[in-house]
Amino acid sequence: MAAPTAQESAGLRSPALIPARPAVDTPVIGGTVGRLPLFDPAPRVPHGHPAKAFVGEVVPFDVVAFREGHDRIGVHLRLTDPAGNETLHRLTALADGTDRWRTQIALDRQGDWQYRFESFADDFATWAHDAAVKAEAGIDVTVMSQLGNALLTAAASETDRPDAERRMLKKAARALSTADADALHATAIDQRLASAFAARPHASLGSHTEWLTLRVDRELAGVSAWYEFFPRSEGAVRRKDGSVRSGTLRTAAKRLPAVADMGFDVIYLVPIHPIGTTNRKGRNNTLTTEPGDPGSPYAIGSADGGHDAIHPDLGTEKDFRAFVRAARTAGLEVALDLALQASPDHPWVTEHPEWFTTLPDGTIAYAENPPKKYQDIYPLNFDNDPAGIYAEMLRVVMHWVDLGVKIFRVDNPHTKPLQFWEWLIAEVGRRDPDVIFLAEAFTRPAVMRALAAIGFQQSYSYFTWRNTKTELEEFLTSVSHETSDYMRPNLFVNTHDILTEYLQFGGRAAYRIRACIAATAGPVWGVYAGYELIENVARPGSEENIDNEKYEYKFRDWDGAEQRGESLAPLLRRLNAIRHAHPALGQLRNLSMHWSDDDAVLVYSKHLDAAFTGTGTADTLIIVANVDPHSVRETTVHLDTRIWGIEPGDDYEVEDLLTGAVWTWNDHNYVRLDAFAEPVHILKVKERS
Amino acid sequence: MAAPTAQESAGLRSPALIPARPAVDTPVIGGTVGRLPLFDPAPRVPHGHPAKAFVGEVVPFDVVAFREGHDRIGVHLRLTDPAGNETLHRLTALADGTDRWRTQIALDRQGDWQYRFESFADDFATWAHDAAVKAEAGIDVTVMSQLGNALLTAAASETDRPDAERRMLKKAARALSTADADALHATAIDQRLASAFAARPHASLGSHTEWLTLRVDRELAGVSAWYEFFPRSEGAVRRKDGSVRSGTLRTAAKRLPAVADMGFDVIYLVPIHPIGTTNRKGRNNTLTTEPGDPGSPYAIGSADGGHDAIHPDLGTEKDFRAFVRAARTAGLEVALDLALQASPDHPWVTEHPEWFTTLPDGTIAYAENPPKKYQDIYPLNFDNDPAGIYAEMLRVVMHWVDLGVKIFRVDNPHTKPLQFWEWLIAEVGRRDPDVIFLAEAFTRPAVMRALAAIGFQQSYSYFTWRNTKTELEEFLTSVSHETSDYMRPNLFVNTHDILTEYLQFGGRAAYRIRACIAATAGPVWGVYAGYELIENVARPGSEENIDNEKYEYKFRDWDGAEQRGESLAPLLRRLNAIRHAHPALGQLRNLSMHWSDDDAVLVYSKHLDAAFTGTGTADTLIIVANVDPHSVRETTVHLDTRIWGIEPGDDYEVEDLLTGAVWTWNDHNYVRLDAFAEPVHILKVKERS
Repeated sequence: MAAPTAQESAGLRSPALIPARPAVDTPVIGGTVGRLPLFDPAPRVPHGHPAKAFVGEVVPFDVVAFREGHDRIGVHLRLTDPAGNETLHRLTALADGTDRWRTQIALDRQGDWQYRFESFADDFATWAHDAAVKAEAGIDVTVMSQLGNALLTAAASETDRPDAERRMLKKAARALSTADADALHATAIDQRLASAFAARPHASLGSHTEWLTLRVDRELAGVSAWYEFFPRSEGAVRRKDGSVRSGTLRTAAKRLPAVADMGFDVIYLVPIHPIGTTNRKGRNNTLTTEPGDPGSPYAIGSADGGHDAIHPDLGTEKDFRAFVRAARTAGLEVALDLALQASPDHPWVTEHPEWFTTLPDGTIAYAENPPKKYQDIYPLNFDNDPAGIYAEMLRVVMHWVDLGVKIFRVDNPHTKPLQFWEWLIAEVGRRDPDVIFLAEAFTRPAVMRALAAIGFQQSYSYFTWRNTKTELEEFLTSVSHETSDYMRPNLFVNTHDILTEYLQFGGRAAYRIRACIAATAGPVWGVYAGYELIENVARPGSEENIDNEKYEYKFRDWDGAEQRGESLAPLLRRLNAIRHAHPALGQLRNLSMHWSDDDAVLVYSKHLDAAFTGTGTADTLIIVANVDPHSVRETTVHLDTRIWGIEPGDDYEVEDLLTGAVWTWNDHNYVRLDAFAEPVHILKVKERS
Repeated sequence: MAAPTAQESAGLRSPALIPARPAVDTPVIGGTVGRLPLFDPAPRVPHGHPAKAFVGEVVPFDVVAFREGHDRIGVHLRLTDPAGNETLHRLTALADGTDRWRTQIALDRQGDWQYRFESFADDFATWAHDAAVKAEAGIDVTVMSQLGNALLTAAASETDRPDAERRMLKKAARALSTADADALHATAIDQRLASAFAARPHASLGSHTEWLTLRVDRELAGVSAWYEFFPRSEGAVRRKDGSVRSGTLRTAAKRLPAVADMGFDVIYLVPIHPIGTTNRKGRNNTLTTEPGDPGSPYAIGSADGGHDAIHPDLGTEKDFRAFVRAARTAGLEVALDLALQASPDHPWVTEHPEWFTTLPDGTIAYAENPPKKYQDIYPLNFDNDPAGIYAEMLRVVMHWVDLGVKIFRVDNPHTKPLQFWEWLIAEVGRRDPDVIFLAEAFTRPAVMRALAAIGFQQSYSYFTWRNTKTELEEFLTSVSHETSDYMRPNLFVNTHDILTEYLQFGGRAAYRIRACIAATAGPVWGVYAGYELIENVARPGSEENIDNEKYEYKFRDWDGAEQRGESLAPLLRRLNAIRHAHPALGQLRNLSMHWSDDDAVLVYSKHLDAAFTGTGTADTLIIVANVDPHSVRETTVHLDTRIWGIEPGDDYEVEDLLTGAVWTWNDHNYVRLDAFAEPVHILKVKERS
């Protein structure tokens, strides 16, 4: 509970708790602006929704504060955690001409935090500055001594100061009673006084912002590695007659230890519900099915049930409970797909036709984008009976929550009303604050940002389509700094619907490069099963895998591929191990872009100050990636080493966490990155002893 | 009152008033987001203060609006003018991936306007799009005809539609009763129906933003040319013994017709109050005075009175009234300096010592920046007796308002509390909404922007220090587009305190270039007397004129200089005439940057659509300036001619309004700009007949 040292303040390195004391509150006269104005508090979401953080996240709190003239001000953050504990934190002026002040806080408790900023006239700092200058110049010594005496005497009478401090202040006041230039100067620069007033300022004026809310989710909302699979493929067997026996939740569970062994935290299952038979899609999204085609799991609902049911091929509710338990045992959490649409065979269709659009001819409208029709799907209509349909969706989600599912990957949320998601996420959160919703919205930026702002705890992003150095610089800067108060990107490298040209044509190198960047650039990333096997053949002219798993079973030889050295599983395992070992990779906002002289060599760092690592030493990684998967690149990288506390020009050691190589680096360094061997450096900056 | 045509909507060219009808208001369920979300309405000031415009300003109103899925939406602006008249305006989707919609409105009435945005499901547009596509494909003809029949029949029953329109809608509904593909297609693309629904949509769902306020000031707040002078210099006479007889308000008034003849709108007087004698500053800001030194008019107050008094050398209140009348007769408005500080001789010092800071030794604190002291000035202390000092400042301002002054140039507002200005400007505005305050704050961006946001109607800017092409591009874009909702820059080319190096060393060309840019880049500009005479000698090492007029009388031979061809008065006269003839120059937000291949050739245009010029034709000016005053530059300029409705590659004529030269231009044009002859083109795009 000590006052922040000058060093801590300057580097914004410490949360620097100080005991809370009431704010000085100068009346606002007539208008809306406080006596010592405060503007633009952050974190903040544009539309007034709560800002977001996760347990363990280091969040910059900042505000614009200034006053007229030359007198000194200070700024506090007053923070109330979800349990009601109030703390005060001193902010540091960035002193970059923006009038912005900042502190960083590691948020250590899930729930809603309240915060406001408080400005105050830092009377001691103003006096000390003027007194020191005037004592040196030999002017106004008497007056400044008298002013200091009065200030110190008043502060000494403040009863919330420790007795020893009050005695020190009284003594310092007495030292000024003689009006001696040397005594004045010594008092003005006394570090014990400065520390005392840094912890408990003596303020004649003060203002404050309104209270704002920061919602802190559990850590997994902000830091996780996802693995997507189709449970029906895991353990599926092709019989001698060519027909297939579906995998089940029991057979799929056998894959969980291997997924956990690769270091993933979340196992995400595409929909596991009964699949409609009316107008079922065949292989490669064809309109005709062959006998045995399992259908798309997104055509949800049949005579076997709807969104609260399990496909009979996969098993029973008991099997599902066993799957969740097996995942938990392996160290994985289960994420389910939430795809709010119905096949024509869904029970809702007969029980609640008002939840769909009925046409004048009495039929229910198919999903369509005229003149195209999607005849295996009925879209929901949220406007005929909002109360009924909202309640049913909440019931469905809570059904799975009760079965142990705390994570939902929401399919196409941008095709349902935004206000529905705002309501649903709030209602579910009230019942279980551990539930996490991931928005699978690939659409225009305003829509994706709005979905995040109104509550989604994670969001798919444009990452898969950002492959060049320039694209990645812009994208990573945006997600780390511009939208990080409310949007947490999940950097999936592929999905069952997305196989980009970069992956189609970049070979093994492309798969390595993308995994290294996704795993290190943000704290949440994901892969869809088969990425390890470099399944990079697309349906011609499309951006998805040929023989898409949505319409058929997949048979994969995980172990054989790894034994033959063909699998990327060892790389994924290594990347997740690096993530677990390095707290700097568990943060979203700590990415800094650096530079290289090559148009394909991307350079960024992730840094976490010693105050926040829990180890007593800072954690700094420098990632250098050749994003051209067809080339060898040699270039010079240029680093702002001050971010990790090293003066430009000074040497330090780095270790490549992928290869073990160790080099001595400074702020300008030669690199050679061979796409066909090791296209990426993940370098740990070694602490100097 | 006709509906907007497609062309008008596409070009955002028309205010397109349509009769107001109530909004469809779909309930918000649980949360805060509407059924058809609306975000980020503009114009808007970051801190919640009213946005600003001026009478005649063309303001873009825009908002982010979208809905889930493919169905069409529309967006309205509902606008209530200060008299309570409500209008509805249709917005156009920018269709640039931002989900932003926009319309432009010319605000024609002073006072507070209220506005909100309303989104609605555009049911006819959705139906018409789908029906046209399906009719062509020959699918769903019966169902689409039935849906269309129902929609048209429902719309025909809406009693606020004109009878003829209702008959047309009924007839169109009947045409769909046969379920014929041709009839369906014809109805779907019927332009009369489209127009009817554009004016009065048939909407099943709708949402709206909160009401926001836009404060519209009188035109002079947004469009004016200022001329600053020291009245004591105008008509001052040096006697044979070397002493000076001060100019007076009567002699200064003789200069007014010449100032008006140069086309200026505002005559700004530095403080005209009694000047203190205690510690009076001498020439060139020296601490010792010579007999006859008049002192700085900013050291306000003597035995002759304070801020509500007139310096005896200048005349009486009666003389001041005569000066105001003379200005009005010449077509000028008087602006007074409001410098809230006191000389030691100010009546406030004895009558209200509580308005200053009294030190322990009983003396009043001088203005200082330790160890520097300004012993001719006592700064006010706004915290000892806020009620008393606020009331006195309001009294002083209203005293001058009662004498006919409606414009105040506020000296150093950033050295007084921000909340004081918020209060004062609001109180004065309540008493007289015509009063305009110009903030003379040259400080950090956050402070300058806050002063504008809380109420100042005009602001000095960084213009004097933005001289290179790159600096000007950034500066002009910022003031025209980033801060234009609340900050109106007054582009003074010089002041009695600012003589930049660019002017000191750029010769006559520098003076010409800066005047041409200031007069055309923004709708408010200003000069300090002497600019015409190229008074470009600085006090060595400083950024202000040698023998600063603040401390002495100036004797200038205006007419002689003009007769000898040395004066820039003809250029200033020409620039102001161009401003008066071209409404595009009377707007702040209509500046577009263009490009040249030369690093000193700045290119921008000002364009106003025909709907807003009052002449029936658009007004477009292209300004091309060689900002290197020491060179001749030849280069190619590249223009986005679509802004003025000309396709890239098409020819059009331009006329140089400074020289009368006429050229045929397209989107890439050769220019030669000789700093020593004509460094700037001000080109009028000629309308094609």
